[in-house]
Amino acid sequence: MISSKMLRLTETNSVIRAMFEEGNRLAAQLGRENVFDFSLGNPNFPPPDAVAAAIIDILQTTPAIEAHGYMSNAGFTPVRDAIARSLNARHGTDFSAEHIIMTVGAAGGLNVALKTLINPGDEVIALAPYFVEYGNYVNNYDGVLRVVPPNIPGFQPDPEALAAAITPKTKAVIINTPNNPTGVIYSEDSIRSIAAVIEQKQTEYGAPIYILSDEPYRELAYDGAQVPYLTKYYRNSIVCYSWSKSLSLPGERIGYLAVPRDADDSALILEAAAIATRVLGFVNAPSLIQLAVARCLDESVDVAAYDANRRALHGGLTARGFECALPEGAFYMWLKAPADDDRAFAESAKRQRILLVPGTSFACPGYVRLAYCVAPSTIERSMDGFSRLAAEYGLL
Amino acid sequence: MISSKMLRLTETNSVIRAMFEEGNRLAAQLGRENVFDFSLGNPNFPPPDAVAAAIIDILQTTPAIEAHGYMSNAGFTPVRDAIARSLNARHGTDFSAEHIIMTVGAAGGLNVALKTLINPGDEVIALAPYFVEYGNYVNNYDGVLRVVPPNIPGFQPDPEALAAAITPKTKAVIINTPNNPTGVIYSEDSIRSIAAVIEQKQTEYGAPIYILSDEPYRELAYDGAQVPYLTKYYRNSIVCYSWSKSLSLPGERIGYLAVPRDADDSALILEAAAIATRVLGFVNAPSLIQLAVARCLDESVDVAAYDANRRALHGGLTARGFECALPEGAFYMWLKAPADDDRAFAESAKRQRILLVPGTSFACPGYVRLAYCVAPSTIERSMDGFSRLAAEYGLL
Repeated sequence: MISSKMLRLTETNSVIRAMFEEGNRLAAQLGRENVFDFSLGNPNFPPPDAVAAAIIDILQTTPAIEAHGYMSNAGFTPVRDAIARSLNARHGTDFSAEHIIMTVGAAGGLNVALKTLINPGDEVIALAPYFVEYGNYVNNYDGVLRVVPPNIPGFQPDPEALAAAITPKTKAVIINTPNNPTGVIYSEDSIRSIAAVIEQKQTEYGAPIYILSDEPYRELAYDGAQVPYLTKYYRNSIVCYSWSKSLSLPGERIGYLAVPRDADDSALILEAAAIATRVLGFVNAPSLIQLAVARCLDESVDVAAYDANRRALHGGLTARGFECALPEGAFYMWLKAPADDDRAFAESAKRQRILLVPGTSFACPGYVRLAYCVAPSTIERSMDGFSRLAAEYGLL
Repeated sequence: MISSKMLRLTETNSVIRAMFEEGNRLAAQLGRENVFDFSLGNPNFPPPDAVAAAIIDILQTTPAIEAHGYMSNAGFTPVRDAIARSLNARHGTDFSAEHIIMTVGAAGGLNVALKTLINPGDEVIALAPYFVEYGNYVNNYDGVLRVVPPNIPGFQPDPEALAAAITPKTKAVIINTPNNPTGVIYSEDSIRSIAAVIEQKQTEYGAPIYILSDEPYRELAYDGAQVPYLTKYYRNSIVCYSWSKSLSLPGERIGYLAVPRDADDSALILEAAAIATRVLGFVNAPSLIQLAVARCLDESVDVAAYDANRRALHGGLTARGFECALPEGAFYMWLKAPADDDRAFAESAKRQRILLVPGTSFACPGYVRLAYCVAPSTIERSMDGFSRLAAEYGLL
């Protein structure tokens, strides 16, 4: 009786979300401290104190009908202006308020961007491994997701494979760096190469191909790594940002789209995206938190805490014979599944009360993802289980 | 270069939103106090103090990673439980937490419900005059909006006209009471009649037809008027609620869907709606405000203040010869346009710096809507302009 699309989705619901629910069930049964849940990117480190301070100050000083009221669908102009200035100062870009549209997180932003751009049958490219929801987002608008195979073992994008995937129907390429699930930061060389490929193809086909830069992990980069700002390498880039990770506000659903002034049809895209925000039912990004993040543009979660987790988990896993690169960004460890069967490995891990996500869910079998945005003690206390897993797989 | 659907929408953008932007432009030019903006339902009366108190208390007592964190896509279970209990206590319903899905306002809820139910080509019925966005929401899922003509002059739904509009493709009927734009509350007799019609048709066609009850104005009823609770009259009713008006939080985007346990496919609809919340990019309703509204379920904006506005505006308009019924609920006055041309009348009003929305935007030409959720002084100070308008149209 429900729609065919949704019926299919109920039959193949998100493995990640199912794992999250499973984690909650196990925690209720065994105690939260006895379940080592590396499944979901739900930050364990709190927002900086400045967020709560900003919210309380806004509640005490801004008229409530303004703080909680409607504004233009694109968001509060002073908020958008502050974001544009902050981006320009940090990245040498040239945004104004009019180029920023506040969104309900990056997921909302991606939906708004796809709704704005995609006709039925248009193709959108994702580079495996990729966040599984991209396929659902593209399907919402009857687009077709085309997947570029993973570039193992380094997981930098492969320009030739990308070129091979682009067709005259390609409307957008989703880029996600620092990457979920691999933790890889696409190098400047990689960005230049894929920009050149896409530029060449849009010239060849005579129609713009947009990069949708999904950037929830931009601020999470370790060892001083730089994350190239896409719009500087390719003007038809649309940035889909979120504060979910940078300020640990995933439940608040707050982010923005940034469309450069020199992108093809920039003004029309911005106009349409504001309308898409409205007609998709977002109407606008939540108002109070818009005002709050605008006051916290120089704030960040404690990246050093993630870094410590990163090193602890990587050290513990490699010491036990597991194979994984030290992530450069985000908060995911991308582990090669021993014996290659990632789903069987995830099941084995679950018997050790360790929850992780099979790479199959990211279109990259043979690997598993561990989200290390957890309490440090979770990593420490999971190591006995990993030792038993390593023994089970003959790694020790 | 953008999608065809969005290109059409940029060409025919919302008159209401355009009016809102126009109001802001005029206010910047002439001073906010010299523009009488009755165009948008943006409440002028603040939320009850309990909302800010709840937010501050949550920030000070709930761990931040919980207050701002991910939860199940359907929302925080204790929040959903509190809402179910509150509904049951007030309306004698039988909801549990599992029947409630937190949404990004009623607009988000309607989109989730339509995404859940609608296959391309399915028909959704709206009763004119109706909130113009319904058409866009239905179009998002390639459904077809069928419109039942307005039942002038009382604007109660006409069961026979509704019956005539239902076809084997009808999947849902959107009901909005208290009604935007008319301010009419559908009577218990009306509800019984339309429930009987839909029940008879779904039996005849052998497939469920759902009522989507769009209820942002439920708590705004005057003179002790009762607003019948739809699920008690028709089990295939899905409630789309919002606190935008009842707590003056329109910018916060917070509401819920309620699906009765005895609705056809209730469990499947609830499962699919939680997934639809995720894949549409909402992910979940904003977290902090979820927790806040759960503490404010017995709170309300100052309905007496709206009532005073209602009486002042109605008295002022009728004294000047305009024709309008005293609204029973919501915060809209539905005025018969003198000389019948609502758009010309709206233009004449704008020359008096009075902004209102032509009924054509609600599929009901010949009327205009005035949102009286404004400062009382706006009503008072607009009266000279209305006097001039009345003179212009020969009413005085």
